[in-house]
Amino acid sequence: MAVAVKALFFDVFGTLVDWRSSIAREAKALLEPKGHALDWLGFADAWRGEYQGAMDEVRSGRIGFRKLDVLHRRNLDLILPRFGLAGLGEQERQNLNLAWHRLDAWPDVSRGLHRLKRRHMLAPLSNGNISLMVDLARRNDFPWDAVLGAEIARDYKPKPGVYLAAAEAFDLPPAECMMVAAHTFDLKAAAAVGMRTAHVARPNERGPGKGEAAPAEPVDIAAGNLEDLAQKLGA
Amino acid sequence: MAVAVKALFFDVFGTLVDWRSSIAREAKALLEPKGHALDWLGFADAWRGEYQGAMDEVRSGRIGFRKLDVLHRRNLDLILPRFGLAGLGEQERQNLNLAWHRLDAWPDVSRGLHRLKRRHMLAPLSNGNISLMVDLARRNDFPWDAVLGAEIARDYKPKPGVYLAAAEAFDLPPAECMMVAAHTFDLKAAAAVGMRTAHVARPNERGPGKGEAAPAEPVDIAAGNLEDLAQKLGA
Repeated sequence: MAVAVKALFFDVFGTLVDWRSSIAREAKALLEPKGHALDWLGFADAWRGEYQGAMDEVRSGRIGFRKLDVLHRRNLDLILPRFGLAGLGEQERQNLNLAWHRLDAWPDVSRGLHRLKRRHMLAPLSNGNISLMVDLARRNDFPWDAVLGAEIARDYKPKPGVYLAAAEAFDLPPAECMMVAAHTFDLKAAAAVGMRTAHVARPNERGPGKGEAAPAEPVDIAAGNLEDLAQKLGA
Repeated sequence: MAVAVKALFFDVFGTLVDWRSSIAREAKALLEPKGHALDWLGFADAWRGEYQGAMDEVRSGRIGFRKLDVLHRRNLDLILPRFGLAGLGEQERQNLNLAWHRLDAWPDVSRGLHRLKRRHMLAPLSNGNISLMVDLARRNDFPWDAVLGAEIARDYKPKPGVYLAAAEAFDLPPAECMMVAAHTFDLKAAAAVGMRTAHVARPNERGPGKGEAAPAEPVDIAAGNLEDLAQKLGA
């Protein structure tokens, strides 16, 4: 690369954390003791299935910015009746919504981030809100320099302003920043504002074989996981 | 305290880092080899002396928000002629301005923060910009959970919105947050929005005996340093 990469920005859901099995586990832990039996992975998929549509309301300007926790709660209320859970109480809904703060990282992530931190500034550039990012970092030992992303930009990826706000917070031109994600659409949007791109393979993100094993468009680096990315960046 | 404190927010300049001797050292390191001889501590004091006035331009709405790095540079340009340095070049001014990114912490800070992190969420709530906070954290090993403060709020302390934006980012009511500072005015503003307050003694911040050895108004905790604060919070 002609220009040295100074900062690495990370997508989080899917790229760093396994939201699907974590949400299934958390939902089961909260609801099974109350006598509910459902397809827990299907429940996770249904909840995540409302994700992009809810953010589209903000991206399009139809509603003002609100944190992802608020959108997750709206989506939860939407899907509960489909699973026979329309009667779930307010306190249980609040607890369940915080399942997104208790996601587990893929096994390579903490080690990879610590290695990458030696030579690069690191921040999540996620659609998740700051408190959610902080809880995931504490749970999984993510050594962030700062928490950037949607809440700072008050808009959602892949809107260009979200990427630009992160570069601006670090006082860097986009060409000195690299976006790291397991989703080609995210990398494409980062490249469009001038950032470098690294794809991380998460072939089972949405279930066995249902994830991106490789980028669908050209990227600067295609890595198998974060330790492989560290090696490819010479970190 | 009736309500448990979940987050600790920190003032940085003066409270965590010794800006005065650090700026004097950095200015000397950059300018002495070029043949300049001046009162280095006086230079630091003069530069810091323009600090509140520059932020008042933003606080009052006379100018839009701009990062502290930009205000520091404006203040530098303002004071250079007073020290016979009106001819200093653009590159040297830029290097000198980044001296604020190379400040050293008081000796108790890193240990104290690591101890406090076990049971509390930690963030700087400083008027310094995000990149400045990140550079100070890397240099001095400050284990922040997130970087909050003026740049997030797009206004400067002691405006109430800056404190409220930090509590809001962590999804906490102000009563579950504690502001930690060596300056009574900062704590008073935090208390006015409902936060808890902890004073840290920095009796020599602006020179021998020129700093707050004790708070000038009542606070929840008065600590000698951050390790003392950790002890008083049972951390």
